[in-house]
Amino acid sequence: MTIKVAIAGASGYAGGEILRLLLGHPSYLSGDLQIGSLTAGSSAGASVADLLPHLPQLAHRIVEDTTPEILGDNDVVFLALPHGHSAAIGQALADRNPETVVIDCAADFRLQDAGEWEHYYGGEHAGNWPYGIPEMPGHREQLQGAKRIAVPGCFPTGATLASLPAVAAALVVPDLAVVSITGVSGAGKKAAVGLLGSEVMGNLKAYNTAGKHRHTPEITQNLAEVTDEEITVSFTPVLAPLPRGILTTITAPLAAGVTQDAAYETYRAFYQDEPFVHLLPEGQQPQTQNVVGSNMCHVQVEVDMRSGRLLMTSAIDNLTKGTGGAALQCMNLSLGWPEIAGLPQAAVAP
Amino acid sequence: MTIKVAIAGASGYAGGEILRLLLGHPSYLSGDLQIGSLTAGSSAGASVADLLPHLPQLAHRIVEDTTPEILGDNDVVFLALPHGHSAAIGQALADRNPETVVIDCAADFRLQDAGEWEHYYGGEHAGNWPYGIPEMPGHREQLQGAKRIAVPGCFPTGATLASLPAVAAALVVPDLAVVSITGVSGAGKKAAVGLLGSEVMGNLKAYNTAGKHRHTPEITQNLAEVTDEEITVSFTPVLAPLPRGILTTITAPLAAGVTQDAAYETYRAFYQDEPFVHLLPEGQQPQTQNVVGSNMCHVQVEVDMRSGRLLMTSAIDNLTKGTGGAALQCMNLSLGWPEIAGLPQAAVAP
Amino acid sequence: MTIKVAIAGASGYAGGEILRLLLGHPSYLSGDLQIGSLTAGSSAGASVADLLPHLPQLAHRIVEDTTPEILGDNDVVFLALPHGHSAAIGQALADRNPETVVIDCAADFRLQDAGEWEHYYGGEHAGNWPYGIPEMPGHREQLQGAKRIAVPGCFPTGATLASLPAVAAALVVPDLAVVSITGVSGAGKKAAVGLLGSEVMGNLKAYNTAGKHRHTPEITQNLAEVTDEEITVSFTPVLAPLPRGILTTITAPLAAGVTQDAAYETYRAFYQDEPFVHLLPEGQQPQTQNVVGSNMCHVQVEVDMRSGRLLMTSAIDNLTKGTGGAALQCMNLSLGWPEIAGLPQAAVAP
Amino acid sequence: MTIKVAIAGASGYAGGEILRLLLGHPSYLSGDLQIGSLTAGSSAGASVADLLPHLPQLAHRIVEDTTPEILGDNDVVFLALPHGHSAAIGQALADRNPETVVIDCAADFRLQDAGEWEHYYGGEHAGNWPYGIPEMPGHREQLQGAKRIAVPGCFPTGATLASLPAVAAALVVPDLAVVSITGVSGAGKKAAVGLLGSEVMGNLKAYNTAGKHRHTPEITQNLAEVTDEEITVSFTPVLAPLPRGILTTITAPLAAGVTQDAAYETYRAFYQDEPFVHLLPEGQQPQTQNVVGSNMCHVQVEVDMRSGRLLMTSAIDNLTKGTGGAALQCMNLSLGWPEIAGLPQAAVAP
Repeated sequence: MTIKVAIAGASGYAGGEILRLLLGHPSYLSGDLQIGSLTAGSSAGASVADLLPHLPQLAHRIVEDTTPEILGDNDVVFLALPHGHSAAIGQALADRNPETVVIDCAADFRLQDAGEWEHYYGGEHAGNWPYGIPEMPGHREQLQGAKRIAVPGCFPTGATLASLPAVAAALVVPDLAVVSITGVSGAGKKAAVGLLGSEVMGNLKAYNTAGKHRHTPEITQNLAEVTDEEITVSFTPVLAPLPRGILTTITAPLAAGVTQDAAYETYRAFYQDEPFVHLLPEGQQPQTQNVVGSNMCHVQVEVDMRSGRLLMTSAIDNLTKGTGGAALQCMNLSLGWPEIAGLPQAAVAP
Repeated sequence: MTIKVAIAGASGYAGGEILRLLLGHPSYLSGDLQIGSLTAGSSAGASVADLLPHLPQLAHRIVEDTTPEILGDNDVVFLALPHGHSAAIGQALADRNPETVVIDCAADFRLQDAGEWEHYYGGEHAGNWPYGIPEMPGHREQLQGAKRIAVPGCFPTGATLASLPAVAAALVVPDLAVVSITGVSGAGKKAAVGLLGSEVMGNLKAYNTAGKHRHTPEITQNLAEVTDEEITVSFTPVLAPLPRGILTTITAPLAAGVTQDAAYETYRAFYQDEPFVHLLPEGQQPQTQNVVGSNMCHVQVEVDMRSGRLLMTSAIDNLTKGTGGAALQCMNLSLGWPEIAGLPQAAVAP
Repeated sequence: MTIKVAIAGASGYAGGEILRLLLGHPSYLSGDLQIGSLTAGSSAGASVADLLPHLPQLAHRIVEDTTPEILGDNDVVFLALPHGHSAAIGQALADRNPETVVIDCAADFRLQDAGEWEHYYGGEHAGNWPYGIPEMPGHREQLQGAKRIAVPGCFPTGATLASLPAVAAALVVPDLAVVSITGVSGAGKKAAVGLLGSEVMGNLKAYNTAGKHRHTPEITQNLAEVTDEEITVSFTPVLAPLPRGILTTITAPLAAGVTQDAAYETYRAFYQDEPFVHLLPEGQQPQTQNVVGSNMCHVQVEVDMRSGRLLMTSAIDNLTKGTGGAALQCMNLSLGWPEIAGLPQAAVAP
Repeated sequence: MTIKVAIAGASGYAGGEILRLLLGHPSYLSGDLQIGSLTAGSSAGASVADLLPHLPQLAHRIVEDTTPEILGDNDVVFLALPHGHSAAIGQALADRNPETVVIDCAADFRLQDAGEWEHYYGGEHAGNWPYGIPEMPGHREQLQGAKRIAVPGCFPTGATLASLPAVAAALVVPDLAVVSITGVSGAGKKAAVGLLGSEVMGNLKAYNTAGKHRHTPEITQNLAEVTDEEITVSFTPVLAPLPRGILTTITAPLAAGVTQDAAYETYRAFYQDEPFVHLLPEGQQPQTQNVVGSNMCHVQVEVDMRSGRLLMTSAIDNLTKGTGGAALQCMNLSLGWPEIAGLPQAAVAP
């Protein structure tokens, strides 16, 4: 049987990344996966040649309107829409056919707490779907065969994978100072003066600081799954002059008696079977260039005896492991395909 | 039968790119291709984790010394060595086993003219091997089954593919003004003050100007294969602040009576069956970001009636179609595998 | 007497650069120059703190509406408005007070040929004002005491200064192949998807090619002032990932018998007394980083015997010598102040 | 009287920045300051044209050897040498003439604690000189007329100015999590593979983490001057793809009862008379592009009630306020000149 895969919001960066990865998926190359409907909002009617010129194989495809009718005629639908748009279309797709696999890259179904949703996003809370970080305890099992999946935010992916083993093993007091430095594609393909090349190159700036960034409650929610202690997260995102990549640095007070060896061994054991999390050799720090275009998360952990804090760091490509790659990883789990199919572990460096 | 593939000079950018592509090659995924010896010069003894941290699958591999003995125990050997080092080792490998496929990424076997070799590279001319631009008339046939292949230079690849149809069809007087703007990885992974990030970012500079660049005779040689007229090439390379990519712009005097329609149709017909050359829709110019990590060359042709010149442009990734991808394309042809196997057509953009 | 200086379009990149330079002008530091009205279009009402946070001295100033009444109450008015907006306001200012010095950074008064204006810009031709490249023969004299000045375009400044001595001295047949690679600020501070950091970083693309760029006739016009031969200009602008800077490379057929020594000596003699044109030592090529923030143009000339062409190159900062610095240089000439006052010759490198 | 100013280490980035600023100093323009000896190590004998092509006014100057004899013949000597080289030459200059003003840009005389010096730098501790952050309480007075001055490190400048008011006023428990993201020029002009453009562009990486960076004790020392509480500093430097600029983000546990208004007012009062520290309007975060080439430090402070931490941020140009500008500010204080002379407050943006 051929699986027909659609993308709503195909003209954006997340949609383009999902397409790029699908074109290299072994099921696509063998004909078992077919690229179905590509839809967009204001770009509907334009060709892939105009919208995504890095995908010459699809140059002649025309992007259609984002409607449940068009999307419903597919087996898998990726939603790469602005926050708040997935809830309605997700429901409409489920009503048409409960067997359709819907994988939402927006925030609509990520948060469990309605109050947090309303505070950070406004409007009514649509509920929550199985959350797509397979590396979190119990999540892989939930995602296998799931028909509805919420793909995590890019910052929560980097922050969660960097600190999860430490919080789960109580290596730290979970009062985390998180600084995540991101490339510009995380802000999407929307025209805004603050995202112009002239404003971004040669520049570094923090934004949505002091608890204002919408990914703050998502990070907290993830870590709360592995500890009974109260989680506190200070989150400072920083915009840096590169297209792709997030480097996350986290420090937290070291629990009594934790040594470098114990911390490193905790991480090693936690991630030893994970195909997409790579604990670096001791002494090496993650670099975003080493994950560009790959679905990997590189992590490191280091005890700082001088300050009595644990340093946890990670690097991901915000568009791959941070969005489109995670979405394909979830699709593989949903369909019962090999989890790593079509997902590069090698990066495009330098 | 499993094909064992070695790389000499594995620690550099070209070697790393060949490895990245091999790791995604369907024959590697199926087990028909095995990554054999990895060798280097001063980096011998170090691990891939240290040298190429973007390839976590090979992290524990140790890089060995570059010797004919070590390399000779493989079916295919990629030479990614500095210019002038391939001749001796290529000969030694041939002496050991004439069936070993040797694919040289250096200049040693590219030039047909011994005088040009001596002028531009110095030392004795080693001869020339089948030249690895399959898109040049007659070359694909020479490369099929070839045991010795010279991979072209990155600038010659971009300049040749941009102008070949025009020169072959006499759309222009072949007196070409070539300006090629390149990312920094083209200069290799060697410590030099002029290549420091501080010197490169925010900077543009021409270098090896006015006929001094070693790729000048190679461009001329390629174009001379398709015309009897005398070729003149003014070549100006420019270093720009990006890691990967070459944008080539070429202008030449328009031949009498050539129209935009005729020029575009000439290009369309010339490249219509080529998997790795993509003629853009009229009105679109090539962008290097649309070929990053892919083996594609995007081209465009445009008549400028005001100046009476033809504008020919191309974009490639200097490490993929410009080196490592071309090397794999040649390997596929040599081994009788599908030419496109393991070579992405979609780019990592943005 | 205190000179009061206004800027219309103060919120843009050109306006901001004029302000930056005025704040360092010795007449400002001594109190002889006062920063008068700052006006804008849609940004009127906002503070300098919001619009130009790199100018903390003016943080509390509020930007006003662009009207002849507000601007007319100043001795010098810089117009940094979109093309086509300067004609009306320039006329209104002249009507109010013919002694007001009006320095227009747009194209409105640059072109002498009404047909070229209509072809490239559309609408009615407003005429032409003294043209602000003092280094062109006779221009410095026209600019001294002038009340109306047209500041040149950034590409024409780089291309003219690179090739003027060669064309004037007939070192070449004036059939020029011009490729100008520019930083992104040249496109102005307007939100557009194609100028986003994600689209610009890691990318190179030619645009407005094959005679379509509006600066093409301006380059031709400038060179035609120094030769009776017919000028042909093929102009290819390229967008590159840096905020500031234009590198211009020009080649043209060498006239018979021209040697490297003669070419270099021609340039040396032509520019020896110019404070803002620096002929580099032979063997050095211009680099844009060496002119960032300065009012300099670095130039080089090189004979290419292999191709029979002359290579002429220049580097400028498009916002300084390419716009705001040129505007101040013109103001100094208009007011009879030292031409170099307030104009850095040293660049902010690296 | 003309003051003769020498620079030892003139060929590096710090030396070049000092020269750039001196060339715009009003005392240089009036002839009261003369640029004396320029010296270097392995670059001695080369011209400024070759070493610092962004300073065309000095193109013909030849760089001499770094000896006490050559340097001693000047009134002011800036030492921009590698760490550990200043102690001997500083002593030799003092022996020759105690009136010579020696301003050291290296770490040799910054640390008060010999144990910290030995731990972080090795070798014998040379003692400490008046420390050149005039904005620290009591320091301006020490620097006025001083003959020996230690210019602070770039990271300590950014971290100290960001957090000093908060620590002094006990707005926080002084257990600081400091993440400083820096441009590449901070690493100096030395050839190293890890600093190549290809390795830096598109990349983010932390380095010298977990207390290993030499600036860690300097930050601690500075803050300890304004509080009796024990200072703890977790310091994580991150290398980012831009030439100049440091963005520092610091969080620390909020002291009981501290409100946003109180925090902001504390900063306002602390810095209200400082010419080179600019507290941004509430709601604006510092951006490095707004201080490029200027001697400014932009700061912001923000209460994060969700996490119970205070966020303190700053932006500086590492080569200006972080090194060369600070050095000139110290020279002005030493010589009794206006503190702001020759030091731009406006930045080169974008």
